[in-house]
Amino acid sequence: MGGDDAPQIVIEGASIARERLPDVRFMIFGDETQIAPLVTKYPLLKESCEIIHTDKIVTAEEKPGQALRRGRESSMGLAIRAVKDGKACAAVSAGNTGALMAMSKFMLRTMPGIDRPALASLLPTSCGESIMLDLGANVECTEDNLVQFAIMGAAFARTVLGLANPSVALLNVGVEELKGNEIIKNADRMLRDANLPMDYVGFTEGHGLANGDVDVVVTDGFTGNVALKTAEGTARMIAGMLKEALSDSLMSKIGYLFAKPALSGLKDHLDPNNHNGAVFMGLNGLVIKSHGSASASGFASAIGVAADMASNNLAGKIIRDLERFDNYAEEVIEDKAV
Amino acid sequence: MGGDDAPQIVIEGASIARERLPDVRFMIFGDETQIAPLVTKYPLLKESCEIIHTDKIVTAEEKPGQALRRGRESSMGLAIRAVKDGKACAAVSAGNTGALMAMSKFMLRTMPGIDRPALASLLPTSCGESIMLDLGANVECTEDNLVQFAIMGAAFARTVLGLANPSVALLNVGVEELKGNEIIKNADRMLRDANLPMDYVGFTEGHGLANGDVDVVVTDGFTGNVALKTAEGTARMIAGMLKEALSDSLMSKIGYLFAKPALSGLKDHLDPNNHNGAVFMGLNGLVIKSHGSASASGFASAIGVAADMASNNLAGKIIRDLERFDNYAEEVIEDKAV
Repeated sequence: MGGDDAPQIVIEGASIARERLPDVRFMIFGDETQIAPLVTKYPLLKESCEIIHTDKIVTAEEKPGQALRRGRESSMGLAIRAVKDGKACAAVSAGNTGALMAMSKFMLRTMPGIDRPALASLLPTSCGESIMLDLGANVECTEDNLVQFAIMGAAFARTVLGLANPSVALLNVGVEELKGNEIIKNADRMLRDANLPMDYVGFTEGHGLANGDVDVVVTDGFTGNVALKTAEGTARMIAGMLKEALSDSLMSKIGYLFAKPALSGLKDHLDPNNHNGAVFMGLNGLVIKSHGSASASGFASAIGVAADMASNNLAGKIIRDLERFDNYAEEVIEDKAV
Repeated sequence: MGGDDAPQIVIEGASIARERLPDVRFMIFGDETQIAPLVTKYPLLKESCEIIHTDKIVTAEEKPGQALRRGRESSMGLAIRAVKDGKACAAVSAGNTGALMAMSKFMLRTMPGIDRPALASLLPTSCGESIMLDLGANVECTEDNLVQFAIMGAAFARTVLGLANPSVALLNVGVEELKGNEIIKNADRMLRDANLPMDYVGFTEGHGLANGDVDVVVTDGFTGNVALKTAEGTARMIAGMLKEALSDSLMSKIGYLFAKPALSGLKDHLDPNNHNGAVFMGLNGLVIKSHGSASASGFASAIGVAADMASNNLAGKIIRDLERFDNYAEEVIEDKAV
């Protein structure tokens, strides 16, 4: 029931995902009187979905605390509970981000070894896609948080991008080891020393993100949120100016007609809908956040991320890597004791 | 002597600035055997410049500490000293940023009432230009630092953008008052309460930057540096993809020919050379940093920023506003004491 055009977009998105992923089955939570007529339009989806009725919803304006108190029986609350109870492999929502985060954290709890969950997403780069986290779940982070984010981000890259040995970097103001604050320098040292299944390359800077210099960019939720929104804002600004430039005279309109096929590839690559689906990582269960303004195809992308993660055992990978890091940490402590 | 193509670019840039700003006079510090033949090519510049010879330079690789110890007699060191001694109104350099910052801070000292200088610059937005600071001088900032940055940024906007009452915002992860860390929330409260010559609007997010939602965006040097480089990286990525798309088939090449005049306006607006010139704010003297890779026209833009600030008494504006803020702060303390 969440997002700008719910439930239409959600149902249409599920139908697109159903075509892309024939093995996926859906539990659709919300107002049956609105949902059932929409589902009927898509026979394939209808066959593979179950509607669980509730007339309670979490609104876009609700504060996380309110949602926690009042949202248990809402479509959002019931979807998360289905994950908790093992009835669903993942929950996907286009609703209120703060509420989704708070309820997911409360109901699913963080995985053993993870102090705080992080919000991670795929972003377009000049050579494909990279993953960035945390995108805003934690405005302040310790070095331990950053190391855990790196482990979770690498597992994301192995699961969804299919990379055996993803490159991982910490976002910083320079690439020299002397740069940055103490927290980042400590996290850098810990990641350098630990023998983790990733190619830890050290620091990257703001432009490393768009360049696609690394597969996983790790940062605190404050910086990550600002960087994400700055990149999206810049892309939107240029797209807007480009559109204006190409419609501003007869000459440029003719130019646009000729260049249109070539430009549409660029447009596709930058379209946030094609990279939709931010993951709350580090919980005992998968919860995926779709942009509230995602198109049906965008919502289907978010479902695709959920399906990839569920079928490739993201959680198992994270747990294994955390154990590996803990073993290293214990060795370090023992070494120091000796 | 600093920057990728010094001294050619610098001399050519000074010549362009001389044409744009007939009242400006130049002191050019560096190797006379290289500089004099270049200056001879530009009769107007030659009339209005003085070459001060030194064969010492600060290299791009030098650490700030090394530059402080060894750079006093370098072209950079002598230029800053000319500002200190009142012989020059401003120093402009395309050289080593860390060294320029360290030497400027050491030789010019911070203004009374300013705890730390900040690096500020103009950035292109969808509706013109905005100012952002700090861009990397201070990786960690207190609420007092942020308030001082806001005062300095507003003075920048009044001086260079000619705005009587510039809008100012703190960069945050959301616009609600509850968002962000304690430092930002405190700075927000202080700026809200103080009666300063600016239109303080509260928080802005990453996309507010490109949107041009406010005239001055205030943030710590870590976040500012990441945001600046993310925006530049995103713009460069899209420009690169656009170029590729427009040269990838005969059709798109024809399209490009028609659209070229319209696209060149966009290119101009996004060209970092047209927004070149970052200012070390809060020192007892003006020092402007040009991009190391700036073109001659870009270097001339940096000289233009210096001339604007010098002739519009930037320092006086900052000092007056700081006094106003201090009066407010004292009143608050007195109120509390009562």
